[in-house]
Amino acid sequence: MRKLDFWFEYGSTYTYLSVARSSKAAAATGVQLEWHPFLLAPILTELGMAQGPFRPYPAKMAYMWRDLERRAQQHGLPYLKPSHYPPNTLLTARVGTLAAVEGWCEAFTQSCFNLHWTQDCAIGSEQNLAICLTGLHKNPAEVLARAQAPEIKERLRSATDTARALGLFGSPSFVVDRELFWGDDRLEEALDWATR
Amino acid sequence: MRKLDFWFEYGSTYTYLSVARSSKAAAATGVQLEWHPFLLAPILTELGMAQGPFRPYPAKMAYMWRDLERRAQQHGLPYLKPSHYPPNTLLTARVGTLAAVEGWCEAFTQSCFNLHWTQDCAIGSEQNLAICLTGLHKNPAEVLARAQAPEIKERLRSATDTARALGLFGSPSFVVDRELFWGDDRLEEALDWATR
Repeated sequence: MRKLDFWFEYGSTYTYLSVARSSKAAAATGVQLEWHPFLLAPILTELGMAQGPFRPYPAKMAYMWRDLERRAQQHGLPYLKPSHYPPNTLLTARVGTLAAVEGWCEAFTQSCFNLHWTQDCAIGSEQNLAICLTGLHKNPAEVLARAQAPEIKERLRSATDTARALGLFGSPSFVVDRELFWGDDRLEEALDWATR
Repeated sequence: MRKLDFWFEYGSTYTYLSVARSSKAAAATGVQLEWHPFLLAPILTELGMAQGPFRPYPAKMAYMWRDLERRAQQHGLPYLKPSHYPPNTLLTARVGTLAAVEGWCEAFTQSCFNLHWTQDCAIGSEQNLAICLTGLHKNPAEVLARAQAPEIKERLRSATDTARALGLFGSPSFVVDRELFWGDDRLEEALDWATR
Protein backbone atom coordinates (compact mmCIF):
# COMPACT_ATOMS: atom_id res chain seq x y z
CA MET A 1 0.00 0.00 0.00
CA ARG A 2 1.31 3.44 -0.93
CA LYS A 3 1.92 5.87 1.85
CA LEU A 4 1.40 9.63 2.18
CA ASP A 5 3.09 11.57 4.96
CA PHE A 6 0.80 14.26 6.32
CA TRP A 7 2.80 16.95 8.15
CA PHE A 8 0.83 19.46 10.14
CA GLU A 9 0.93 22.22 12.73
CA TYR A 10 -2.00 22.41 15.18
CA GLY A 11 -2.20 26.21 14.93
CA SER A 12 -2.55 26.35 11.15
CA THR A 13 -5.91 27.48 9.81
CA TYR A 14 -6.00 25.68 6.45
CA THR A 15 -4.91 22.52 8.23
CA TYR A 16 -8.45 22.23 9.57
CA LEU A 17 -9.65 21.31 6.08
CA SER A 18 -7.05 18.57 5.66
CA VAL A 19 -7.52 17.15 9.14
CA ALA A 20 -11.26 16.95 8.49
CA ARG A 21 -11.10 15.39 5.03
CA SER A 22 -7.77 13.64 4.46
CA SER A 23 -8.63 10.28 6.06
CA LYS A 24 -11.66 9.77 3.85
CA ALA A 25 -9.83 10.99 0.73
CA ALA A 26 -6.85 8.72 1.44
CA ALA A 27 -9.07 5.70 2.10
CA ALA A 28 -10.92 6.30 -1.18
CA THR A 29 -7.64 6.08 -3.10
CA GLY A 30 -6.16 3.21 -1.09
CA VAL A 31 -3.39 5.35 0.34
CA GLN A 32 -2.15 5.00 3.91
CA LEU A 33 -1.88 8.34 5.67
CA GLU A 34 0.83 8.85 8.29
CA TRP A 35 0.18 11.70 10.69
CA HIS A 36 3.22 13.82 11.59
CA PRO A 37 2.71 16.69 14.04
CA PHE A 38 5.52 19.23 13.99
CA LEU A 39 6.11 22.81 15.10
CA LEU A 40 5.92 25.35 12.31
CA ALA A 41 6.86 28.41 14.37
CA PRO A 42 10.60 27.65 14.69
CA ILE A 43 10.84 27.00 10.94
CA LEU A 44 9.00 30.21 10.04
CA THR A 45 11.13 32.17 12.49
CA GLU A 46 14.30 30.88 10.85
CA LEU A 47 12.89 31.86 7.45
CA GLY A 48 12.25 35.40 8.71
CA MET A 49 8.50 34.95 9.15
CA ALA A 50 8.35 35.03 12.94
CA GLN A 51 4.88 36.60 12.82
CA GLY A 52 3.53 33.78 10.69
CA PRO A 53 2.20 33.91 7.15
CA PHE A 54 -0.77 36.23 7.73
CA ARG A 55 -0.55 38.56 10.71
CA PRO A 56 1.79 41.16 9.18
CA TYR A 57 -0.37 41.38 6.03
CA PRO A 58 -3.96 42.50 6.70
CA ALA A 59 -5.14 41.96 3.10
CA LYS A 60 -3.77 38.42 3.09
CA MET A 61 -5.24 37.70 6.52
CA ALA A 62 -8.70 38.91 5.45
CA TYR A 63 -8.49 36.77 2.32
CA MET A 64 -7.41 33.70 4.27
CA TRP A 65 -10.49 33.80 6.52
CA ARG A 66 -12.83 34.26 3.57
CA ASP A 67 -11.13 31.60 1.45
CA LEU A 68 -11.17 29.14 4.33
CA GLU A 69 -14.87 29.66 4.92
CA ARG A 70 -15.66 29.21 1.22
CA ARG A 71 -13.59 26.04 0.98
CA ALA A 72 -15.07 24.54 4.16
CA GLN A 73 -18.49 25.12 2.61
CA GLN A 74 -17.39 23.52 -0.68
CA HIS A 75 -16.19 20.46 1.17
CA GLY A 76 -19.35 20.31 3.27
CA LEU A 77 -17.44 20.96 6.49
CA PRO A 78 -18.83 22.95 9.42
CA TYR A 79 -17.03 26.25 9.98
CA LEU A 80 -17.14 28.73 12.83
CA LYS A 81 -14.43 31.38 12.83
CA PRO A 82 -12.43 30.98 16.06
CA SER A 83 -12.15 33.96 18.44
CA HIS A 84 -8.39 33.67 18.82
CA TYR A 85 -5.63 33.39 16.28
CA PRO A 86 -3.07 31.95 16.50
CA PRO A 87 -3.55 29.49 19.35
CA ASN A 88 -0.68 28.31 21.53
CA THR A 89 -0.12 24.79 20.29
CA LEU A 90 3.02 23.49 22.00
CA LEU A 91 1.28 21.27 24.56
CA THR A 92 -1.20 19.93 22.01
CA ALA A 93 1.66 19.15 19.63
CA ARG A 94 3.38 17.19 22.39
CA VAL A 95 0.19 15.21 23.07
CA GLY A 96 -0.14 14.65 19.30
CA THR A 97 3.44 13.37 19.24
CA LEU A 98 2.72 10.91 22.04
CA ALA A 99 -0.47 9.94 20.23
CA ALA A 100 1.47 9.27 17.01
CA VAL A 101 3.78 6.93 18.93
CA GLU A 102 0.82 5.10 20.43
CA GLY A 103 -1.42 5.05 17.35
CA TRP A 104 -4.21 7.47 18.28
CA CYS A 105 -2.95 10.64 16.61
CA GLU A 106 -5.61 10.70 13.90
CA ALA A 107 -8.57 10.48 16.30
CA PHE A 108 -7.02 12.94 18.75
CA THR A 109 -6.16 15.47 16.06
CA GLN A 110 -9.55 15.29 14.37
CA SER A 111 -11.17 15.90 17.75
CA CYS A 112 -8.92 18.89 18.59
CA PHE A 113 -9.54 20.60 15.27
CA ASN A 114 -13.25 19.85 15.31
CA LEU A 115 -13.69 21.52 18.71
CA HIS A 116 -11.61 24.50 17.63
CA TRP A 117 -13.42 25.03 14.33
CA THR A 118 -16.99 24.19 15.22
CA GLN A 119 -17.33 25.17 18.88
CA ASP A 120 -14.68 27.85 19.29
CA CYS A 121 -13.01 25.71 21.96
CA ALA A 122 -9.41 26.70 21.26
CA ILE A 123 -6.73 24.18 20.37
CA GLY A 124 -4.13 24.38 23.11
CA SER A 125 -6.64 25.23 25.83
CA GLU A 126 -7.03 23.02 28.88
CA GLN A 127 -10.66 22.50 27.98
CA ASN A 128 -9.94 21.40 24.43
CA LEU A 129 -7.34 18.90 25.62
CA ALA A 130 -9.58 17.58 28.40
CA ILE A 131 -12.57 17.03 26.09
CA CYS A 132 -10.46 15.35 23.39
CA LEU A 133 -8.65 13.04 25.78
CA THR A 134 -11.75 12.14 27.76
CA GLY A 135 -13.53 11.42 24.48
CA LEU A 136 -10.79 8.92 23.69
CA HIS A 137 -11.24 7.33 27.15
CA LYS A 138 -7.92 8.61 28.38
CA ASN A 139 -7.00 10.23 31.66
CA PRO A 140 -6.02 13.83 30.78
CA ALA A 141 -3.64 14.34 33.73
CA GLU A 142 -1.85 11.10 33.05
CA VAL A 143 -1.55 11.77 29.31
CA LEU A 144 -0.36 15.36 29.82
CA ALA A 145 2.35 14.14 32.17
CA ARG A 146 3.58 11.55 29.68
CA ALA A 147 3.38 14.07 26.80
CA GLN A 148 5.83 16.29 28.66
CA ALA A 149 8.40 13.59 29.25
CA PRO A 150 11.85 14.34 27.81
CA GLU A 151 11.61 11.63 25.13
CA ILE A 152 8.37 13.08 23.73
CA LYS A 153 9.73 16.63 23.74
CA GLU A 154 12.79 15.34 21.92
CA ARG A 155 10.66 13.41 19.43
CA LEU A 156 8.71 16.57 18.55
CA ARG A 157 11.96 18.54 18.12
CA SER A 158 13.24 15.78 15.89
CA ALA A 159 10.02 15.77 13.81
CA THR A 160 10.45 19.51 13.32
CA ASP A 161 14.05 18.92 12.20
CA THR A 162 12.85 16.34 9.69
CA ALA A 163 10.16 18.73 8.43
CA ARG A 164 12.81 21.42 7.90
CA ALA A 165 15.08 18.95 6.10
CA LEU A 166 12.19 18.01 3.79
CA GLY A 167 11.89 21.68 2.80
CA LEU A 168 8.61 22.31 4.62
CA PHE A 169 7.61 25.90 5.27
CA GLY A 170 3.88 25.61 5.86
CA SER A 171 1.03 23.43 7.01
CA PRO A 172 -0.60 21.26 5.86
CA SER A 173 2.15 19.64 3.81
CA PHE A 174 2.11 16.25 2.16
CA VAL A 175 5.18 14.26 1.25
CA VAL A 176 5.47 11.22 -1.04
CA ASP A 177 9.04 9.98 -1.05
CA ARG A 178 10.81 13.37 -1.41
CA GLU A 179 8.01 15.06 -3.36
CA LEU A 180 6.46 17.92 -1.40
CA PHE A 181 2.91 19.28 -1.73
CA TRP A 182 1.91 22.32 0.29
CA GLY A 183 -1.63 23.28 1.19
CA ASP A 184 -4.98 21.60 1.60
CA ASP A 185 -5.65 22.40 -2.05
CA ARG A 186 -2.84 20.01 -3.01
CA LEU A 187 -4.27 16.99 -1.13
CA GLU A 188 -5.75 15.37 -4.24
CA GLU A 189 -2.55 15.99 -6.22
CA ALA A 190 -0.48 14.39 -3.43
CA LEU A 191 -2.78 11.36 -3.34
CA ASP A 192 -2.52 11.03 -7.13
CA TRP A 193 1.26 11.15 -6.80
CA ALA A 194 1.19 8.44 -4.11
CA THR A 195 -0.85 6.11 -6.32
CA ARG A 196 1.18 6.53 -9.52
CA MET B 1 -23.18 36.91 -19.76
CA ARG B 2 -21.39 36.72 -16.43
CA LYS B 3 -18.04 38.41 -16.15
CA LEU B 4 -14.83 37.49 -14.35
CA ASP B 5 -12.15 40.10 -13.72
CA PHE B 6 -8.69 38.65 -14.17
CA TRP B 7 -6.07 40.77 -12.39
CA PHE B 8 -2.46 39.97 -13.11
CA GLU B 9 1.15 41.09 -12.82
CA TYR B 10 3.46 40.25 -15.74
CA GLY B 11 6.32 39.22 -13.42
CA SER B 12 4.34 36.64 -11.46
CA THR B 13 5.30 33.02 -11.99
CA TYR B 14 1.99 31.28 -11.27
CA THR B 15 0.28 33.80 -13.53
CA TYR B 16 1.76 31.92 -16.50
CA LEU B 17 -0.65 29.07 -15.82
CA SER B 18 -3.70 31.34 -15.74
CA VAL B 19 -2.67 33.35 -18.78
CA ALA B 20 -2.23 30.11 -20.71
CA ARG B 21 -5.47 28.43 -19.66
CA SER B 22 -8.02 31.00 -18.49
CA SER B 23 -9.48 31.95 -21.90
CA LYS B 24 -10.38 28.37 -22.72
CA ALA B 25 -11.70 27.67 -19.22
CA ALA B 26 -13.82 30.83 -19.26
CA ALA B 27 -15.20 30.09 -22.72
CA ALA B 28 -16.15 26.57 -21.62
CA THR B 29 -18.27 27.99 -18.81
CA GLY B 30 -19.71 30.88 -20.80
CA VAL B 31 -17.95 33.51 -18.69
CA GLN B 32 -16.50 36.68 -20.15
CA LEU B 33 -12.96 37.31 -18.93
CA GLU B 34 -11.75 40.88 -18.51
CA TRP B 35 -7.98 41.29 -18.49
CA HIS B 36 -6.62 43.78 -15.94
CA PRO B 37 -2.85 44.31 -15.85
CA PHE B 38 -1.63 45.95 -12.65
CA LEU B 39 1.64 46.41 -10.76
CA LEU B 40 2.02 44.09 -7.80
CA ALA B 41 5.34 45.46 -6.54
CA PRO B 42 3.97 48.71 -5.01
CA ILE B 43 1.24 46.75 -3.20
CA LEU B 44 3.69 44.17 -1.83
CA THR B 45 6.06 46.94 -0.76
CA GLU B 46 3.28 48.65 1.18
CA LEU B 47 2.45 45.30 2.83
CA GLY B 48 6.09 44.90 3.91
CA MET B 49 6.96 42.33 1.22
CA ALA B 50 9.24 44.50 -0.89
CA GLN B 51 11.30 41.44 -1.88
CA GLY B 52 8.22 39.65 -3.19
CA PRO B 53 6.64 36.47 -1.95
CA PHE B 54 9.53 34.07 -2.59
CA ARG B 55 13.01 35.59 -2.67
CA PRO B 56 13.52 35.98 1.08
CA TYR B 57 12.44 32.35 1.69
CA PRO B 58 14.63 29.77 -0.09
CA ALA B 59 12.42 26.81 0.89
CA LYS B 60 9.33 28.54 -0.45
CA MET B 61 11.14 29.60 -3.62
CA ALA B 62 12.35 26.05 -4.29
CA TYR B 63 8.84 24.73 -3.74
CA MET B 64 7.30 27.32 -6.06
CA TRP B 65 9.47 26.27 -9.01
CA ARG B 66 8.74 22.60 -8.46
CA ASP B 67 5.02 23.14 -7.91
CA LEU B 68 4.78 25.33 -11.01
CA GLU B 69 6.49 22.71 -13.16
CA ARG B 70 4.20 19.96 -11.87
CA ARG B 71 1.08 22.02 -12.45
CA ALA B 72 2.14 23.08 -15.94
CA GLN B 73 2.58 19.40 -16.73
CA GLN B 74 -0.84 18.56 -15.25
CA HIS B 75 -2.47 21.18 -17.42
CA GLY B 76 -0.55 20.05 -20.50
CA LEU B 77 1.32 23.34 -20.77
CA PRO B 78 4.91 23.65 -21.97
CA TYR B 79 7.33 24.76 -19.25
CA LEU B 80 10.92 25.90 -19.38
CA LYS B 81 12.29 27.49 -16.22
CA PRO B 82 13.31 31.08 -17.06
CA SER B 83 16.92 32.13 -16.40
CA HIS B 84 15.95 35.34 -14.64
CA TYR B 85 13.54 36.02 -11.81
CA PRO B 86 11.89 38.40 -11.31
CA PRO B 87 11.75 40.21 -14.64
CA ASN B 88 11.36 43.98 -14.88
CA THR B 89 7.78 44.34 -16.02
CA LEU B 90 6.94 48.05 -15.93
CA LEU B 91 7.16 48.67 -19.67
CA THR B 92 5.28 45.47 -20.52
CA ALA B 93 2.56 46.41 -18.03
CA ARG B 94 2.20 49.77 -19.76
CA VAL B 95 1.88 48.10 -23.14
CA GLY B 96 -0.63 45.67 -21.60
CA THR B 97 -2.60 48.64 -20.27
CA LEU B 98 -2.69 50.24 -23.70
CA ALA B 99 -3.65 46.88 -25.16
CA ALA B 100 -6.53 46.56 -22.68
CA VAL B 101 -7.84 49.96 -23.80
CA GLU B 102 -7.61 48.91 -27.45
CA GLY B 103 -8.87 45.34 -27.08
CA TRP B 104 -5.73 43.28 -27.76
CA CYS B 105 -4.56 42.64 -24.18
CA GLU B 106 -5.39 38.92 -24.20
CA ALA B 107 -3.41 38.13 -27.35
CA PHE B 108 -0.49 40.34 -26.32
CA THR B 109 -0.31 38.90 -22.81
CA GLN B 110 -0.53 35.29 -23.95
CA SER B 111 2.30 35.94 -26.38
CA CYS B 112 4.52 37.63 -23.73
CA PHE B 113 4.08 34.81 -21.24
CA ASN B 114 4.48 32.11 -23.86
CA LEU B 115 7.85 33.50 -24.97
CA HIS B 116 8.99 33.89 -21.38
CA TRP B 117 7.98 30.40 -20.29
CA THR B 118 8.76 28.33 -23.33
CA GLN B 119 11.74 30.08 -24.95
CA ASP B 120 13.36 31.88 -22.03
CA CYS B 121 12.80 35.18 -23.82
CA ALA B 122 12.23 37.37 -20.76
CA ILE B 123 9.07 39.37 -20.25
CA GLY B 124 10.13 43.01 -20.13
CA SER B 125 13.01 42.55 -22.54
CA GLU B 126 13.17 44.51 -25.78
CA GLN B 127 13.20 41.25 -27.70
CA ASN B 128 10.10 39.87 -25.99
CA LEU B 129 8.17 43.09 -26.67
CA ALA B 130 9.34 43.29 -30.28
CA ILE B 131 8.36 39.70 -31.08
CA CYS B 132 4.95 40.01 -29.40
CA LEU B 133 4.07 43.30 -31.05
CA THR B 134 5.32 42.25 -34.48
CA GLY B 135 3.34 39.03 -34.13
CA LEU B 136 0.24 41.16 -33.64
CA HIS B 137 1.12 43.20 -36.76
CA LYS B 138 1.97 46.27 -34.74
CA ASN B 139 4.87 48.66 -35.02
CA PRO B 140 6.89 48.20 -31.81
CA ALA B 141 8.38 51.72 -31.73
CA GLU B 142 5.00 53.31 -32.29
CA VAL B 143 3.28 51.17 -29.64
CA LEU B 144 6.05 51.70 -27.07
CA ALA B 145 5.76 55.45 -27.54
CA ARG B 146 2.00 55.40 -27.03
CA ALA B 147 2.33 53.02 -24.04
CA GLN B 148 4.48 55.62 -22.29
CA ALA B 149 2.06 58.48 -22.78
CA PRO B 150 0.94 60.13 -19.54
CA GLU B 151 -2.65 58.85 -19.82
CA ILE B 152 -1.51 55.21 -20.06
CA LYS B 153 0.90 55.60 -17.13
CA GLU B 154 -1.95 57.10 -15.16
CA ARG B 155 -4.34 54.34 -16.19
CA LEU B 156 -1.89 51.69 -14.92
CA ARG B 157 -1.47 53.56 -11.62
CA SER B 158 -5.21 53.74 -11.33
CA ALA B 159 -5.58 49.99 -12.04
CA THR B 160 -3.08 49.31 -9.27
CA ASP B 161 -5.11 51.54 -6.93
CA THR B 162 -8.26 49.59 -7.81
CA ALA B 163 -6.45 46.30 -7.21
CA ARG B 164 -5.35 47.52 -3.79
CA ALA B 165 -8.89 48.65 -2.97
CA LEU B 166 -10.20 45.21 -3.94
CA GLY B 167 -7.86 43.66 -1.34
CA LEU B 168 -5.47 42.10 -3.86
CA PHE B 169 -2.04 41.05 -2.62
CA GLY B 170 -0.97 38.57 -5.29
CA SER B 171 -1.25 37.47 -8.89
CA PRO B 172 -3.16 35.95 -10.51
CA SER B 173 -6.32 37.14 -8.77
CA PHE B 174 -9.89 36.76 -9.92
CA VAL B 175 -12.76 38.96 -8.85
CA VAL B 176 -16.50 38.39 -9.27
CA ASP B 177 -18.41 41.38 -7.94
CA ARG B 178 -16.45 41.89 -4.67
CA GLU B 179 -15.53 38.23 -4.20
CA LEU B 180 -11.78 37.65 -4.45
CA PHE B 181 -10.00 34.45 -5.51
CA TRP B 182 -6.22 34.32 -5.36
CA GLY B 183 -4.03 31.94 -7.32
CA ASP B 184 -4.23 29.92 -10.50
CA ASP B 185 -5.54 27.04 -8.40
CA ARG B 186 -8.69 29.10 -7.71
CA LEU B 187 -9.57 29.70 -11.37
CA GLU B 188 -12.23 27.00 -11.49
CA GLU B 189 -13.72 28.16 -8.18
CA ALA B 190 -13.89 31.74 -9.48
CA LEU B 191 -15.59 30.60 -12.69
CA ASP B 192 -18.08 28.58 -10.63
CA TRP B 193 -18.79 31.67 -8.58
CA ALA B 194 -19.32 33.76 -11.73
CA THR B 195 -21.87 31.29 -13.10
CA ARG B 196 -23.89 30.82 -9.92
